[in-house]
Amino acid sequence: TGVAMMKFKSPPVNSLSLEFLTEFSISLEKLENNRACRGVIITSAVPKIFSSGLDITEMCGKSMEHYTEFWRAVQEMWLRLYGSNMVTVAAVNGSSPAGGCLVALSCDYRIMAENPKFSIGLNEAQLGIVAPFWFKDTFVNVVGHRIAERSLQLGSLHPAPEAHKLGLVDELVPEEKLMEKAAAVMAQWLALPDHARQLTKTMMRKAVLDRLVAHREEDIKNFITFVSKESIQKSLRMYMEMLKKRK
Amino acid sequence: TGVAMMKFKSPPVNSLSLEFLTEFSISLEKLENNRACRGVIITSAVPKIFSSGLDITEMCGKSMEHYTEFWRAVQEMWLRLYGSNMVTVAAVNGSSPAGGCLVALSCDYRIMAENPKFSIGLNEAQLGIVAPFWFKDTFVNVVGHRIAERSLQLGSLHPAPEAHKLGLVDELVPEEKLMEKAAAVMAQWLALPDHARQLTKTMMRKAVLDRLVAHREEDIKNFITFVSKESIQKSLRMYMEMLKKRK
Amino acid sequence: TGVAMMKFKSPPVNSLSLEFLTEFSISLEKLENNRACRGVIITSAVPKIFSSGLDITEMCGKSMEHYTEFWRAVQEMWLRLYGSNMVTVAAVNGSSPAGGCLVALSCDYRIMAENPKFSIGLNEAQLGIVAPFWFKDTFVNVVGHRIAERSLQLGSLHPAPEAHKLGLVDELVPEEKLMEKAAAVMAQWLALPDHARQLTKTMMRKAVLDRLVAHREEDIKNFITFVSKESIQKSLRMYMEMLKKRK
Repeated sequence: TGVAMMKFKSPPVNSLSLEFLTEFSISLEKLENNRACRGVIITSAVPKIFSSGLDITEMCGKSMEHYTEFWRAVQEMWLRLYGSNMVTVAAVNGSSPAGGCLVALSCDYRIMAENPKFSIGLNEAQLGIVAPFWFKDTFVNVVGHRIAERSLQLGSLHPAPEAHKLGLVDELVPEEKLMEKAAAVMAQWLALPDHARQLTKTMMRKAVLDRLVAHREEDIKNFITFVSKESIQKSLRMYMEMLKKRK
Repeated sequence: TGVAMMKFKSPPVNSLSLEFLTEFSISLEKLENNRACRGVIITSAVPKIFSSGLDITEMCGKSMEHYTEFWRAVQEMWLRLYGSNMVTVAAVNGSSPAGGCLVALSCDYRIMAENPKFSIGLNEAQLGIVAPFWFKDTFVNVVGHRIAERSLQLGSLHPAPEAHKLGLVDELVPEEKLMEKAAAVMAQWLALPDHARQLTKTMMRKAVLDRLVAHREEDIKNFITFVSKESIQKSLRMYMEMLKKRK
Repeated sequence: TGVAMMKFKSPPVNSLSLEFLTEFSISLEKLENNRACRGVIITSAVPKIFSSGLDITEMCGKSMEHYTEFWRAVQEMWLRLYGSNMVTVAAVNGSSPAGGCLVALSCDYRIMAENPKFSIGLNEAQLGIVAPFWFKDTFVNVVGHRIAERSLQLGSLHPAPEAHKLGLVDELVPEEKLMEKAAAVMAQWLALPDHARQLTKTMMRKAVLDRLVAHREEDIKNFITFVSKESIQKSLRMYMEMLKKRK
């Protein structure tokens, strides 16, 4: 059918580790180069969680080289996904904070399971960190400036119904109908001639993609400087402790 | 009353041919230079159709010179209409795809007949072509980035109720009330002092207008290159065949 | 609690005179430099009016030097408020036209008394004048391009329920609950780590703040040229006469 299915399966919470991101980018590249593949549905094989976002262990107590490699991998994933020529549909079947939300925001269409226990948002501020400018740009392109400003400052995690109301996700469906709906949406998007659809997508997203490409090294440097601060390291360690205790 | 009425009357579907566009621009220029004229209501004299958009016969099997002249006329019309100092109200009394939608989007206010059989949208992608960047900019200024991205990629033609929900049109009224409502809206806008209103309009639209002015020749070149491709010519011929059969 | 309360008290209508603006800016600066202060709630001590906006007597029949000083004070207030590191909550307990609306728009959150007799908006066009580009930028960041374009051209004053529907204010509450609600919202925003919240706010607002900083002298010159015109002076005098008669 020309449609690939990508199921995140890195228990317990589909953290975006360096390894995960590298594999994700390679998979996207392979699909992109496969002319038989025209669309990809992204979902999770882990119950209740789509992706918990960037793996905090990659940002704690590691070397500058490691931070550099990690951040480049985050950028790479986003550049490939947001700029993909394929139709990309996120079937958000669980919670999706921070980097997990970015993955969903970077797709062409977002369908979420209508479970109010599932939430989604760029909640970086809650952890004492700041979403990078290109997370913000991607968010603004989806929900507009005002909703983004408020949600980012509050580090909001929006329950599915609220996320839908804000336009963060396009549609809610009962969880058992999620894949069926994703396939139907994909079919609708694939009904369009690829070339015209791809050029249109590029026209809409190029400015934001170009901005990261132009400032990529600077963005890496900013990340390293930020993450190396003792205060930030402390925040992240505390957050990890809290996560461990929750389990 | 200082209000002009412009009724598109080029049966069967008010295609924006080179001749039509030239006449449209000249009429706008005349009204603009007529100090007694402060506003214009744009509507159609052809039943069920506002304007079907750019005349595809102008883009098929013609010379480079013709394409150049045609595209310059499309640009000219938009620069005059989107940048008009007059109050411009679109009374959309029929379907309005592609270039027809652009005409409506370029006005200050859009009222549409609440007939769900009438649809409006920038459906270029459906024909295998891409809306130019300034069609896109005009659209984004009206409905925002997300709705524009989705609608343009899908080449959506939105039935009147949906168009209203998306903000593509400002108001729906029963068809028989359309002109009365347009006059009332016009009166409301004309109650403002011209000078302040015009400067405000310029402030809001200048960035997008300037962008085409700065890239006008490049945009013509892009159009010619694109439309001259054999694959595009084929798409357009197929589309015209389909239209003929429909009749 | 780390929260300051600022109550506008300059009867009869909290006009933003040179003196008022200077005091406002100094107060903001003091709070900003007071590390114990993390947030400020802005409201009015004058019944039925939040602020009537820029004091027109400062713009009528004064010297160039006075206009310069006045306009610089308007800019200064906005730069401080829109760029404040504190959490800023507007408790809009009365009407808030023009510059009064700008004050509310520049805060992080706007709560308005749900009295339909109270209205808010950038109604400059009604007086024959034009809102400066940075009023417009602030407005667009809150309500988006389309709503801003229409509202600014019509110089609309939106009754509270309409303002809420347009997103101009975030929430409506009964007037007697306004301060309680403002305190609750403030607590919610202050629950976030200051540093991350402040950097996020800067990321969202920097482009618009920088634009005025880069064009500040030019903007003053524009204001002087504009306000010195005999036609504008006449409009403003007529408006003042009308206000006097109303009383």
